[in-house]
Amino acid sequence: MAAPTKSSRKLLLLSNSTSHGGGYLDYCEQQIKDFLGRNVKKVVFVPYALTDRDWYTDIARKRFAELGYEVQSVHECSSPVEAVEQAEAIFIGGGNTFRLLKTLYDEKLVEPIRTQVLKHSIPYIGSSAGTNVATATINTTNDMPITCPPTFEALALIPFNINPHYIDSDPSSKHMGETREKRIMEYHEEAHCRPVLALREGSILWVEGNKTTLLGGLSARLFRKGELPAEYSPGDDLSFLLTAGL
Amino acid sequence: MAAPTKSSRKLLLLSNSTSHGGGYLDYCEQQIKDFLGRNVKKVVFVPYALTDRDWYTDIARKRFAELGYEVQSVHECSSPVEAVEQAEAIFIGGGNTFRLLKTLYDEKLVEPIRTQVLKHSIPYIGSSAGTNVATATINTTNDMPITCPPTFEALALIPFNINPHYIDSDPSSKHMGETREKRIMEYHEEAHCRPVLALREGSILWVEGNKTTLLGGLSARLFRKGELPAEYSPGDDLSFLLTAGL
Repeated sequence: MAAPTKSSRKLLLLSNSTSHGGGYLDYCEQQIKDFLGRNVKKVVFVPYALTDRDWYTDIARKRFAELGYEVQSVHECSSPVEAVEQAEAIFIGGGNTFRLLKTLYDEKLVEPIRTQVLKHSIPYIGSSAGTNVATATINTTNDMPITCPPTFEALALIPFNINPHYIDSDPSSKHMGETREKRIMEYHEEAHCRPVLALREGSILWVEGNKTTLLGGLSARLFRKGELPAEYSPGDDLSFLLTAGL
Repeated sequence: MAAPTKSSRKLLLLSNSTSHGGGYLDYCEQQIKDFLGRNVKKVVFVPYALTDRDWYTDIARKRFAELGYEVQSVHECSSPVEAVEQAEAIFIGGGNTFRLLKTLYDEKLVEPIRTQVLKHSIPYIGSSAGTNVATATINTTNDMPITCPPTFEALALIPFNINPHYIDSDPSSKHMGETREKRIMEYHEEAHCRPVLALREGSILWVEGNKTTLLGGLSARLFRKGELPAEYSPGDDLSFLLTAGL
């Protein structure tokens, strides 16, 4: 299940939904408006990463209303598949990545979402877990494996992996658990692995066709098997990730 | 795959192998000696949680030699299954829990280890990932899912879950990722979940038959679905976990 080499996909992939001291989707408000534009009126929301879907939908609905968009949640529709097939735009919110991916498979939404995004250029916004499932696999989620999806293969809207909520190692820490960098490097010890773009909180990846750009105020850290990690700055063109090193 | 209600199992489950400022297995040295006693001469080591098995075995071999025990690693044996079947004691070291569990299944070691521990009372020591796989499932590991095991069901030498390397929430943190407590509570939102004993670094669980006791210098935090977390002190009898709430 690889992403096609040519696609007019449109993705806005958020590291997180809320940054410290801010409100829900505050830090990325302008980018969401720029991304969806004025042609989109209604966003189909996927709340599966949290258990309280009504509560979660209410949060998303109020926030998107402030931005000028209506929200329809798949869990309120008699057919989630039809809701996706008729979507003008899709937003998958954060929470637990394992629960989210399992439910996407249970509800048979994986292929419909792929078709909408990759073939029909329906704009896709993902936040945290919603960003993890947009990538090739969920191998680089930070979440606890509280439930078991049928596979770690995800929507594969892009052919590399992302680590959202990336946090730098704290040299003063007395905790002996693996640092985030160590964990990603362990992933690269495996035979089947992909480049991992680590997005710090507040970072955004804008993907349009075969072009992708880093947005937000912070640099992002790219891990590739057998190479030293590299830092990329906001505004940098990371399009090579859509084709290279696979 | 539930643990039998009656068993003469003997387990020493370590939260971690190295505590801050100490060396490998320093903090638990005395407990390992007390646990293995003088009848055991040789320990079968399972190094599957790390990729460099030779290096890892060398570390374990030197450390156990200081304690008076020989180490034989399953990866050095022509038949890992036979090595386990003939073991006087088993030690599964830490690293990545997903890699470890996958390899235990790949090497067909799950049932042989269960038989040795639960039926033949072969002493089992687990550290970190080696503790995770000793429990009912790996649903409460902290590790990154770098590879996909066939199931999250583990050795089930005990019928509850453990969260090793437990770390308390830091109220001054600006990171917006879930705290460890939040992650465990998300696990308890799932339909099929078990009690989770969170062991801080430096904590040890000694299991003998249907009795289990907390050792080490710190309290442990017990999470049960629908209940407030509870703290238990070193020396506390936690035997109720071996039968209750399942």
